[in-house]
Amino acid sequence: MKKTIAVLPGDGIGPEVVGSALRVLDQLAEQFNHQFDYTFADIGGCAVDQHENPLPDQTLEVCRQSDAIILGAVGGPKWDQLAPEMRPEKGLLKLRKELQLFANLRPVTCYESLLDASPLKPERIKGVDFIIVRELTGGIYFGEPRERKGEGGDEIAIDTLTYTRYEIERIVRKGFELAQVRRGKVTSVDKANVLESSRLWREVVEQVAADYPDVSYEHMLVDNAAMQLIRQPAYFDVVVTENMFGDILSDEASMLTGSLGMLPSASLSAVGPSLYEPIHGSAPDIAGTNKANPLATISSVAMLLKYEFGLEEEARVLEEAVSAVLESGVRTADLAKEGEAQASTDEVTDEVIKQ
Amino acid sequence: MKKTIAVLPGDGIGPEVVGSALRVLDQLAEQFNHQFDYTFADIGGCAVDQHENPLPDQTLEVCRQSDAIILGAVGGPKWDQLAPEMRPEKGLLKLRKELQLFANLRPVTCYESLLDASPLKPERIKGVDFIIVRELTGGIYFGEPRERKGEGGDEIAIDTLTYTRYEIERIVRKGFELAQVRRGKVTSVDKANVLESSRLWREVVEQVAADYPDVSYEHMLVDNAAMQLIRQPAYFDVVVTENMFGDILSDEASMLTGSLGMLPSASLSAVGPSLYEPIHGSAPDIAGTNKANPLATISSVAMLLKYEFGLEEEARVLEEAVSAVLESGVRTADLAKEGEAQASTDEVTDEVIKQ
Ligand SMILES: CC(C)[C@H](C(=O)O)[C@@H](O)C(=O)O
Ligand SMILES: CC(C)[C@H](C(=O)O)[C@@H](O)C(=O)O
Repeated sequence: MKKTIAVLPGDGIGPEVVGSALRVLDQLAEQFNHQFDYTFADIGGCAVDQHENPLPDQTLEVCRQSDAIILGAVGGPKWDQLAPEMRPEKGLLKLRKELQLFANLRPVTCYESLLDASPLKPERIKGVDFIIVRELTGGIYFGEPRERKGEGGDEIAIDTLTYTRYEIERIVRKGFELAQVRRGKVTSVDKANVLESSRLWREVVEQVAADYPDVSYEHMLVDNAAMQLIRQPAYFDVVVTENMFGDILSDEASMLTGSLGMLPSASLSAVGPSLYEPIHGSAPDIAGTNKANPLATISSVAMLLKYEFGLEEEARVLEEAVSAVLESGVRTADLAKEGEAQASTDEVTDEVIKQ
Repeated sequence: MKKTIAVLPGDGIGPEVVGSALRVLDQLAEQFNHQFDYTFADIGGCAVDQHENPLPDQTLEVCRQSDAIILGAVGGPKWDQLAPEMRPEKGLLKLRKELQLFANLRPVTCYESLLDASPLKPERIKGVDFIIVRELTGGIYFGEPRERKGEGGDEIAIDTLTYTRYEIERIVRKGFELAQVRRGKVTSVDKANVLESSRLWREVVEQVAADYPDVSYEHMLVDNAAMQLIRQPAYFDVVVTENMFGDILSDEASMLTGSLGMLPSASLSAVGPSLYEPIHGSAPDIAGTNKANPLATISSVAMLLKYEFGLEEEARVLEEAVSAVLESGVRTADLAKEGEAQASTDEVTDEVIKQ
């Protein structure tokens, strides 16, 4: 197989973890006789520095012409004081909108060998294996009007949460499809006791569900979901929700296993190439020190192989290598137990390649 | 002291836990020589059944003429299919708006004797003692327009998130004031990298902070806050945030100690009497079985005594009685360890009175 991949390392530890992931991908390509061609492009803070634009046109163009996209991370204190339009995150938000990356998939898996790292008691976290499906191009992130007006105490700021039936149906279907190849259970999260958009959301879920008789589903209020994720995380299979709720719940969920540095994500496009990235941030404090955990990015590449290129076998090999590395005890600082040796980004990468 | 209290037992276990709290309050009144006069009124599902209105005018009137309000809980499956205007929750939302209950205070305290009940490892949860200050009468809960229009796939639902500078300032000040009598640290939670209203929020926090040089503060993004609450709950002192974020985070926080049945809340009014209620719901499944944990409602009464009537000593006595009961091992089903005897609502109440 011959494919082109847009590579957007971004800021902070982005270049390091992406570098690791590409080394692993190269090795896999060789082993399975594929050819992956990379085109690098800037996004986020480094793009602001170089092009005065967190998402330069050429970056968008490179992405559009590729078969898939790998992203590192964006942002850092250096750019925190810039105007909203120049902020690194804006590059990411614009990329999501332009490429219609409507479905953010965030699997949360508990690795047995990392039970220690979890803030939760082992009996609560054991066996956890769910996926959050977050709508990524609608809702309050993009609704209009979003403005400020008036003066003094009456000055008012306005944001708007909108969803069309079409947008909801598209993401809800994705949730049900995923449930079909998983354990067959969808939890749709909303705030239907307060929000008009959630009531439409609930209606659409009811309708879509009728097309998937093999999948069971339920509605859960977002405040209750925030509780249940802690109380009984193993309860969930597929969680589908709107953009802002998904932002909050998926970050909450990412803390359950205690290994943020392990978690991958995919942002699937409705029209073109999809984007794969670790869920952790740019961690400017450890950037350039060869300390970052590359496993989330490597796992994101596994998602890419599976979802984008249909290479199930290759993805499986990669996932197994990640598990094996964890068990071998070669761990970066974020995962190492007290007193244990801390491996560097490169060492962990070497170990994955070896496995 | 002579005071009038509006008592709204509500639905499900509401009447039981409120009944317990009043028994305890009566005993305390006797002991300290106060006179508390109760006027009962309907709210929620029972009000829909009796008056076809989740918040009858006479209930509102009773509240307005009292010095404080005690609420049990509202809602239940019986009323879930009603139109939005007739839903039990609507009664609560309307009450908040009408009485300008703008500041919801939710303390989260870890009781040493309940460490076992927490889903978190004991070393994470030990010493946790923070309070969430949630704005309760603004934001997306009440903003206009909130509507649905269009047809087919283009049908669109709209909710509106608005905040005025005045509304933000009022709640943020409350947060800083509380921090002054606590450990002097405010964490203001927003989503300023996406929302216009959060950017106004952040500005107001900066301004208000200047008036409280003895309080340190920081901004935290809501997704990060959802993570940090699990990772290091003991880090927080006062968390102040807008309505929807507060709804999600305070429910998430309530699960940390593993004892939802313990947690009280106060909703402070800008103009009249304030409202005190347990944060747990109406638990229709155990209603009428004498199994509900009354301690959250009893702790809410302690908050009432302290915040509304300035009776610090009485509040302290009550809080100590609650702690003592926990230590004595007399526990309702939600807290009892496996194999331990489960006390009834009445037994726990008797024990509090005894202590
Ligand atoms: C950077 C920010 C705008 C973004 C979001 O809120 O979507 C991030 O938190 C994420 O979840 O990818
Ligand atoms: C019942 C519901 C409308 C309410 C809310 O969201 O405010 C509840 O969840 C709460 O937190 O008091």
